Amino acid sequence: MINAYAAMEEGGSLEPFQYDPGALGKNDVEVDVLYCGICHSDLSMINNEWGLSEYPLVPGHEVVGRVAKLGEEVVGLELGQAVGIGWHAGYCDHCAHCDSGDNNLCTGATSTIERHGGFADKVRAAANSVVPIPEGVDLAKVGPLFCGGITVFNPLVQFDVKPTAKVGVVGIGGLGSMAVQFLHAWGCEVTAFTSSESKRTEALKLGAHATLNSRDEAELEAAAGQFDLILTTVNVKLDWNLYLNTLKAKGRLHFVGATLEPLDIGAFGLIMQQRQISGSPVGSPATIAKMLDFAKLHGIEPVVEEFAMHDVNAALDHLREGKAHYRIVLKK
Amino acid sequence: MINAYAAMEEGGSLEPFQYDPGALGKNDVEVDVLYCGICHSDLSMINNEWGLSEYPLVPGHEVVGRVAKLGEEVVGLELGQAVGIGWHAGYCDHCAHCDSGDNNLCTGATSTIERHGGFADKVRAAANSVVPIPEGVDLAKVGPLFCGGITVFNPLVQFDVKPTAKVGVVGIGGLGSMAVQFLHAWGCEVTAFTSSESKRTEALKLGAHATLNSRDEAELEAAAGQFDLILTTVNVKLDWNLYLNTLKAKGRLHFVGATLEPLDIGAFGLIMQQRQISGSPVGSPATIAKMLDFAKLHGIEPVVEEFAMHDVNAALDHLREGKAHYRIVLKK
Repeated sequence: MINAYAAMEEGGSLEPFQYDPGALGKNDVEVDVLYCGICHSDLSMINNEWGLSEYPLVPGHEVVGRVAKLGEEVVGLELGQAVGIGWHAGYCDHCAHCDSGDNNLCTGATSTIERHGGFADKVRAAANSVVPIPEGVDLAKVGPLFCGGITVFNPLVQFDVKPTAKVGVVGIGGLGSMAVQFLHAWGCEVTAFTSSESKRTEALKLGAHATLNSRDEAELEAAAGQFDLILTTVNVKLDWNLYLNTLKAKGRLHFVGATLEPLDIGAFGLIMQQRQISGSPVGSPATIAKMLDFAKLHGIEPVVEEFAMHDVNAALDHLREGKAHYRIVLKK
Repeated sequence: MINAYAAMEEGGSLEPFQYDPGALGKNDVEVDVLYCGICHSDLSMINNEWGLSEYPLVPGHEVVGRVAKLGEEVVGLELGQAVGIGWHAGYCDHCAHCDSGDNNLCTGATSTIERHGGFADKVRAAANSVVPIPEGVDLAKVGPLFCGGITVFNPLVQFDVKPTAKVGVVGIGGLGSMAVQFLHAWGCEVTAFTSSESKRTEALKLGAHATLNSRDEAELEAAAGQFDLILTTVNVKLDWNLYLNTLKAKGRLHFVGATLEPLDIGAFGLIMQQRQISGSPVGSPATIAKMLDFAKLHGIEPVVEEFAMHDVNAALDHLREGKAHYRIVLKK
């Protein structure tokens, strides 16, 4: 039996929940959970904001632990090995996306929460979604890289961002705080867009070279034509045409934070300076592995607050109230 | 003196207009006009739709002719050589864009119409904007490639479109008819999006492999996930999220037709499948030269209707009334 914490209904508090995972699939892995990060999308799933949730729902998709059991056909993983599991807990392995290494875009992928997530003592996942954690990485802090981290790291790989790029990060929260660190190590000139004085100071400590008040229209207008890339991590509506205008010719406004309101972009702003707008979800296991190596080399760690797993409801409240600084990790 | 046709006021009919171009600049070229295409943006300039127009305004920026005079410092062009001039009649040659070969994005570029355009017996332009036309190309038809043609060819170069790409072209008009030909020769599987039965048939003749009714929601929905690239040449508002949905993961919705209404794109549609939206203007002289070679190799010619230069007002009316099939060329 697996001992987990589950929401029994839409928006419900988490309660202790036991389930029988059945026989281990031949391509599956069972992981003893050591830590599990909490991501805003755990709240979205608990609240069924995307209409995908089934209950009992065990959240948790920034799982860090050690391999406890290996299905008979699993290769490349060892018992006791430190591993992580992110948003996905399995890929179809036979679609065009999987064949191209874009497993993260596989429409047949299984989500970790759908299988029952990491707010538990154990988690099961298909081996093709389980990523080894390099020796020497602090297991207590690495969890948030598996969803929040890869979400901001992945675009740098996907769009071949150059170290000579000038990059703006919009929103210095969980994702933004990791983006600033990655981009600094990537060699880029990094500007943090934030309206909070305390976050301004922290962004500079995390590696931003400059900051810009995201709510000061005059400051944004004065920054016209400055950036090769703007990575926006917020989920609120901003004046996107004003942000588009801060891009250089050929610049990219990239969304990893999903604002629900339409983007109402003017076509002329795209055409005249050959600008682009894009979005991306989490990355593939191969890109996660690349990220972990890069993070280790450069000493990049999420800024985390630790809660005991049994205090999961207090941790969720902390996140709901906007108090997380910057990511929360549950310790088993 | 140069004998031209000019609008003397906003929206005015064109009238014969003589002007003295002064001494030839040392880096300038004078071209004897043989043909000049008419582009929809000539109408926009006559009507001052973009607030850029000064009168008397001589339209014409798809100029084809022969070099008649060379400024003393001009190299690489010869008297009598067949050349063309597009939207731009000069670049600053010292900005980051010019230094990178992206002269078309030079914010210091001079437009051909601003200097006085090609509805005239002669035109002057800076040598850095004058592009030689390869031997064997039909000068009577090549004009429209210098603005309409390069506008749809340029994205293929800028975004490194692969011959294995499945591409949709939205709008089979002047630009779309050239896009279909280029994409066919590029090796792509081409689908023309049009709501007109006659254009459907013509698109197939021009090289489209399939067509899709751009106003049939059910057909568009059935085409979900089909295209790597959709090139939209229309200037009306369509249901862009429906078009976005016809893209594969990593697909691109690219605008060369400037719809004035905001694009109201949903961020989720970009994020979940890593899609992108972009726009681009005309191309650089180097890309124009590349296009001319490619067009010659593949026998690609704009479909044109010819009017005598002195019938310019009748030709403009023909375009205004939506009767152009597909591009109009004035013959001197």
